Amino acid sequence: MLLCDIGNTTYHFFLKGKSYREDAALFDPSTISEKVFYICVNEQVKEALKALENWIDLSLHVDFTKYYKTMGVDRIMACEAIDNGVVVDTGSAITVDVVKEGRFEGGFIYPGARAMSECYKNISSALIYSFNFEVDLDRMPKNSQDAISYGYLKLLQREVNSYKMDIFLTGGDAMNFKKIFPASSVDETLLFRGMTNIMKRADLC
Amino acid sequence: MLLCDIGNTTYHFFLKGKSYREDAALFDPSTISEKVFYICVNEQVKEALKALENWIDLSLHVDFTKYYKTMGVDRIMACEAIDNGVVVDTGSAITVDVVKEGRFEGGFIYPGARAMSECYKNISSALIYSFNFEVDLDRMPKNSQDAISYGYLKLLQREVNSYKMDIFLTGGDAMNFKKIFPASSVDETLLFRGMTNIMKRADLC
Repeated sequence: MLLCDIGNTTYHFFLKGKSYREDAALFDPSTISEKVFYICVNEQVKEALKALENWIDLSLHVDFTKYYKTMGVDRIMACEAIDNGVVVDTGSAITVDVVKEGRFEGGFIYPGARAMSECYKNISSALIYSFNFEVDLDRMPKNSQDAISYGYLKLLQREVNSYKMDIFLTGGDAMNFKKIFPASSVDETLLFRGMTNIMKRADLC
Repeated sequence: MLLCDIGNTTYHFFLKGKSYREDAALFDPSTISEKVFYICVNEQVKEALKALENWIDLSLHVDFTKYYKTMGVDRIMACEAIDNGVVVDTGSAITVDVVKEGRFEGGFIYPGARAMSECYKNISSALIYSFNFEVDLDRMPKNSQDAISYGYLKLLQREVNSYKMDIFLTGGDAMNFKKIFPASSVDETLLFRGMTNIMKRADLC
């Protein structure tokens, strides 16, 4: 059983407990003949996949009344993976979603590291610094790189920690963010666990 | 006595308790014959002003050992205005600086509203929303506009409130941010009070 999470830049596959990625610009989905259960946030790709019978859109089996209309299906799958906790999905955006006793309680969206770095750069050439994920977030900064790193990282850390819940880190930048959430569980296949849960409930596996 | 805070886009003047702005692209500083005490974050303008004898650079009278080398002189002046509290200066960037008993304790830099809005937009067309400064920050969001507004505003609010100090709001966007810091004091002339304090100490007035 092949699962796939399709983003704007990659096809992220999951097969027998292992995951691998294909570049979305180069990958041709018609080269796969076996059944693929997928989610997709890219509307163009989603449209194209309708022509392929073996590609099955799992979003059709989601109970959207538990979430909200414009919520990304990748966020929903991550929430479906857990019963209690906060999911921090670190991609081009960082999505933070709270689940209590299997119920989605709400969530927020924060810029990913690359986008935020560009943001500072666009404000002023005096703010061109890479983020220091190892900055001491327990003291107020007294230099420019730390002032920017703290502004980006401490505010996220304080917010997420305030929920006093287990933290589930996923997404491409999870290992960097593990530094500011040392007690979190990193799980790159969190979304696939959510997809599997949806499939079980829909009798698809 | 004329004071002036020169930014990248405006000359902000202060005369007899009142302030007014001139467009930096159009204003010619040589048209002023009286003495002007100024600070300037624009290196090009600063260089040009050296030729005008009546324009006096107040940054030369700042004790930089209290601060740090690359810290903007506008941030320093805001800190010089208060003895205890947190300054939130809301411009193209938002600078947050803590002062305790007249001592600078450190500070951080966060994107201003316009820059942050562009940042979300650059991540995905699905994230093009204006910030809702009246979003209820006491509940987790369940729609896209609130998810973005919360991501930007709540994190800043929680961080600044955690200091449990008086909040001094200044800068062009102060009235919007007053909505998330209702107990703060808004003072558009905070920097000029700091400049006046520096002048008193340097026997310039």
